[in-house]
Formats: sequence, C-alpha cells, structure tokens
Amino acid sequence: MYQVNAKAVFGPEDNFQTTRIERRELQNDDVLIEIKYAGICHSDIHTVRGEWGEVAYPLVPGHEIAGIVSAVGSSVKKYQVGDRVGVGCMVDSCGECQHCKEGEEQYCEGPHGHTGTYAAIDKYGHYTQGGYASHIVVTEAFVVRIPESIPLEKAAPLLCAGITTYSPLNHWHAAGKNVAVVGLGGLGHMAVKIASAMEANVTVLSQTLSKKEDGLNFGAHAYYATSDSETFSQLKNSFDLIINTVSAVLDYDSYLNLLKLDGTLVNVGAPADTASLHISRLISARRSFAGSAIGSIKETQEMLDFCGEHQIMPEIELISADKIDEAYERVLRSDVRYRFVIDTKTI
Amino acid sequence: MYQVNAKAVFGPEDNFQTTRIERRELQNDDVLIEIKYAGICHSDIHTVRGEWGEVAYPLVPGHEIAGIVSAVGSSVKKYQVGDRVGVGCMVDSCGECQHCKEGEEQYCEGPHGHTGTYAAIDKYGHYTQGGYASHIVVTEAFVVRIPESIPLEKAAPLLCAGITTYSPLNHWHAAGKNVAVVGLGGLGHMAVKIASAMEANVTVLSQTLSKKEDGLNFGAHAYYATSDSETFSQLKNSFDLIINTVSAVLDYDSYLNLLKLDGTLVNVGAPADTASLHISRLISARRSFAGSAIGSIKETQEMLDFCGEHQIMPEIELISADKIDEAYERVLRSDVRYRFVIDTKTI
Repeated sequence: MYQVNAKAVFGPEDNFQTTRIERRELQNDDVLIEIKYAGICHSDIHTVRGEWGEVAYPLVPGHEIAGIVSAVGSSVKKYQVGDRVGVGCMVDSCGECQHCKEGEEQYCEGPHGHTGTYAAIDKYGHYTQGGYASHIVVTEAFVVRIPESIPLEKAAPLLCAGITTYSPLNHWHAAGKNVAVVGLGGLGHMAVKIASAMEANVTVLSQTLSKKEDGLNFGAHAYYATSDSETFSQLKNSFDLIINTVSAVLDYDSYLNLLKLDGTLVNVGAPADTASLHISRLISARRSFAGSAIGSIKETQEMLDFCGEHQIMPEIELISADKIDEAYERVLRSDVRYRFVIDTKTI
Repeated sequence: MYQVNAKAVFGPEDNFQTTRIERRELQNDDVLIEIKYAGICHSDIHTVRGEWGEVAYPLVPGHEIAGIVSAVGSSVKKYQVGDRVGVGCMVDSCGECQHCKEGEEQYCEGPHGHTGTYAAIDKYGHYTQGGYASHIVVTEAFVVRIPESIPLEKAAPLLCAGITTYSPLNHWHAAGKNVAVVGLGGLGHMAVKIASAMEANVTVLSQTLSKKEDGLNFGAHAYYATSDSETFSQLKNSFDLIINTVSAVLDYDSYLNLLKLDGTLVNVGAPADTASLHISRLISARRSFAGSAIGSIKETQEMLDFCGEHQIMPEIELISADKIDEAYERVLRSDVRYRFVIDTKTI
C-alpha cells in the first residue's frame, strides 16, 4: 500500500484540501505512475458536487493524467521505470464482455461498465481516486504511452478532451468532410485542432464571436455565432458531421437543419435534462442524432500518436494545486482558454 | 386535358364524393396510366383532414398506385402502352439539385422539395391529385415497372409502405443483423417481410401479442408486447437496427436501450409533437436516432424487383370506392390486416 499526497473534497460544497490517500500495492500487471500533471475537466466539477449522482467522500477527481512510470509489477511488459505515460477516464473494465474483447472497453457491458478513474468501485472493492494526486496505480492495459514530442503538461488534457473528440471524428470519418464543432471550450478547441489535422473543413459554432481569432488559429475555416439567428438560415444543409461539445440542452432542431443528407450530429456531452427534437428534421434528410463516449484504449494511443505526429496540443493554463477551487469557478464562467492543468508537484 | 373519375374530399371533415378531375395533356415525357388499384396510407388521412397543414380542396389522395400504361408522350422510351407500372409518393422533383442528380429525389433540395403525388404544386403550376382516380399522368422518370410476378393489387402498397421500409433496411444494411420492427401495421408488416427476405433476424415489438401469429408467419423470429415492461429489460442491448413505423410519440429512451453498440433506431413516421430522449442513452453505446423518408425512384424499382423475386407481398383487403370513409375509420382504429386497397374501377 502506498500513502500518497492528493487534493480531495470532503463534501459536495467543500473546497479542496490536501490529504493523504492510499494506492494499492502493485499487482503483477500494475504500473505505479508518478503523476506530473492533471487536467481539470468539467465532469470533475459535476462529479465532486454530486450533480451526476451520489458519490462518496473524500473524493479525488482527475482523469487527465500525465506522468512517469516509477515502478512496475512483475509481469508488466509494455512499460519500464522512466516511461512517459498517461491515464484517462477509465482504469479497468470487465475484460470479458464482447465490447471489451473487441477493444471497445469504454462501452464495457460488465455489471458496472468500465471502471471510472475516480468515484467508481474497482475489482478489488476499492473506491477509485483520480489524478489530483502525486501517484496512481493502474493496470498496464489501461496505461497509454505519451510520445516524446508532446510535453507532459500538454498531454494531460488529451486523455479526456482529446480522445472524446478524436473518437467520433475518427469513427464518423471526418477526413475531407464539412465538420462543425459546437462550443469552443476544452473539448471544442481540441475537436477543431484534431478535425483540422484530419483535413476536414472545420466550422466553429460558438455563442458569440469572442473567440473567433482563436478558432481560426486552431485551424477552423469559418466561425459563426449561434446567438445570431442568421447563422442557422445561412448554414442550412451544410455539414456532414457536427460534433456537439456543449452539454447544456440546445435547440437541436436548429442544429439538425444544418446537416446535409446523411449527416450526423454527435453529442459528446450528456445534459441531465431530456433533449427534444422533431423527428421530421431527421426524416427530411436521413439525418442521425448520435452520441459517443470517450474512446477505447487502443484509440487513445492512436490519438496520442496522431497528436504527436501532427503537433496537436491543447491550449493550457498551468496552475498550482492551491488554485483548484478558483479554477473550478472560472470553468463554470467559461473563463479559461482552454484547459486548466494542475502541476501536481505543488500538491 | 383529360377529364377523369376520382374520389375526392371537399373539406377536412367531409366524406369522399365521386367527382371529375383534370389530368394534363401528355407532354413528351409523360405517361398516361389507367389506375387499377390504389392503396390507402395513413398519411392520406392526415393530409385530407388538414392535420399536416393546410391543403386545398377538392383533394384526391392516394400515393400507392398500380396500373397499366394507356398512352405515352412522343419521347417516352422506357414504357409502352400495356406495361404494368406503379407510382409512389412523388411525381417529380427539381432534377437540378445535388440530391436529384445523385438519384435521391426524395431528398430534393429544390425550392419546394420533391413534388408530392397529391396536395402539391407541380412544375406546371397545377395542384397535384392522387391515385383514388381512374387515370393519372406522370413524367416517365417517376414511373416504375411492376414485375409480372406481383399482382397489381398487391403491388400498390409497395409504392409507399414497401419502399419506406425497404429503403432504411437497405441503407442500414439489415442483412444478417438483429432487426426489430416497432408496430405491425401497414408499414410494419412490410418491414418484417422485407427484412426477413434480406436474411435479417427479425423481432416484432407490438403493443400486444394479438398479431403474434401473423408476425411469425411474415418471417419474424420473435414477437414481444411493448405493453409488458419485461420486454424492455429482457431485450436490452439486442438490436443492430430498429425500424420504428409508429408515428405517435413513444418513450424513445426505452427503445434506444434495446440497441447494441453502434445500433440505430430509424423512424419512418414523424409525429407532429416533439420527441424527447436522454442523450446519455445515445452516448452509452454510440447509438444513433435517425429518420428516413420513402426511397428514391431507383431504389423503388430495386425494391419491386426484390419483392417480385422473393415473392414478398402485402396482406391486403380489397375494397370498392364507396367504402373509403369506412376504411379510414378502420385504419384509425388499427382494424386492418394490413392494407386497404381500392379497386379503382368502382370509382
């Protein structure tokens, strides 16, 4: 058992406190990672505040983890001490269902689905704790390699924001297509960079034009404000694929109208409320309204290699661990360009 | 100009009356068809009653038309007098937009979309009148050939119920897959027969088990009642494709849960009300909620040839023209197995 430093909340309305948590003794297939950086994802906020269901406290969030291997179990083959590695939104899965066997662990159909990096119960019966910590122990199969060409602090957000957008862009074949990205936040800005590197023709649909210059710099060809109703008449039947990174409920009918024949609107964030739409918007151009969850481990490795090769990296604001509460408030105000990353040596 | 017999309504609450309507003089590319049979589609009822928007009266519905060519324009190449032909839901389209050029006329992006067989304005400025009539004039490109192996009265419903279900089964590659058909009415029973001939593994999801024997006879492997909540737990994650033929609003979340990873629920009927669903149901297994409109002319011909080859035909109840009002009431009570077809010589 390892005792390690971490930042935890002790209740849904509490601020973060420095604490000590336990990481399990290394099993044969385990890797001990010295965490260097941990990204702050909007879902961390929802989860620690109990907005996505009841959770146990103390709770250490964080599922955008980049670090260095500091010990390995006896049967670990892929990694050695000193390797640059990452961990994303899941740390295990049943390994036995059809989806796990086909390498789609994110859709694990085991009794509890895949094991979340935090706020989940793992196969040892332990409550998982995330990346706002100095170390983590993860089974080898859920650890990915970070290419040398990506600095660790820039790699961290790729483990959730990167893969969550890469996966649907890849699955729905964005290359060469007209792709719109709804929302230019942590996920949206990665979607623009990745889609652009895939040689899609990228349009940003953001509430206002305030981040237009950034959007174009990230590789978008066009940028429209969704607060301007003209946008929706002007762009009718324009896109093959829309990646919606906004997890508040939108007027989906308006967005569906922007899809061409056989186009797909993929949601990567799930509002708690129901979504409403007119089925006629789907029928009139054989459109699809879809969803996608993170990506598989294999795909996460592919994404990292792709980002390394194309030098695609998030825009980050590096913070020390005592600024997490402040960062949360700024995320909620959308006052971040575009991802907070915690320097975990300050924990 | 031809004066022909027809059954029309003169107001949204009126019964059908026998009347005379005009069909245009044959243009070079026109075909004059002596209508032998016309199917009664649920959308005929919605349209004549003004439930889908304002319409002009008198109105002759009917877009499941089977008959014999009785004259052709000077440049018509595909058809000769005496040929067995059909006309479905559209009689023209702009011919110039990308979708028309790609042979997807049903998704015509011209200023008015494709020209509906009735209650639409055609390129001559005439109000189109449908198949409850003795004759119709249609441009050659929107006429299809009925295989000798399909009796004309059985062919009629294929022109809407057949193609509307064949097209999504074909587009989403039903062959060899687990397919559910929601609703066993006019469309649903064709979906079961066609999917089964495509060698899909077909399950019917109907409100009750009252038509179970029929469903299995049509080729379904299984049949479940949706009024039984057990159905939804038992069939979780079972289907690659669900064809929803019910155009009333359903509890879509429950149906989405029945889809496997990457499965699609395709709606072929559009409720006037909004549909509500939780996006999390899509995200959790990369599912799609989609829609499909009839099918192209090319695909309609393919469907007819497929049905001819596999001897797939609707179950019909042949009625005389004085029974249309009664048939409408029975359609509204779901008291039809499975499609009314009007013998148009009785008009």
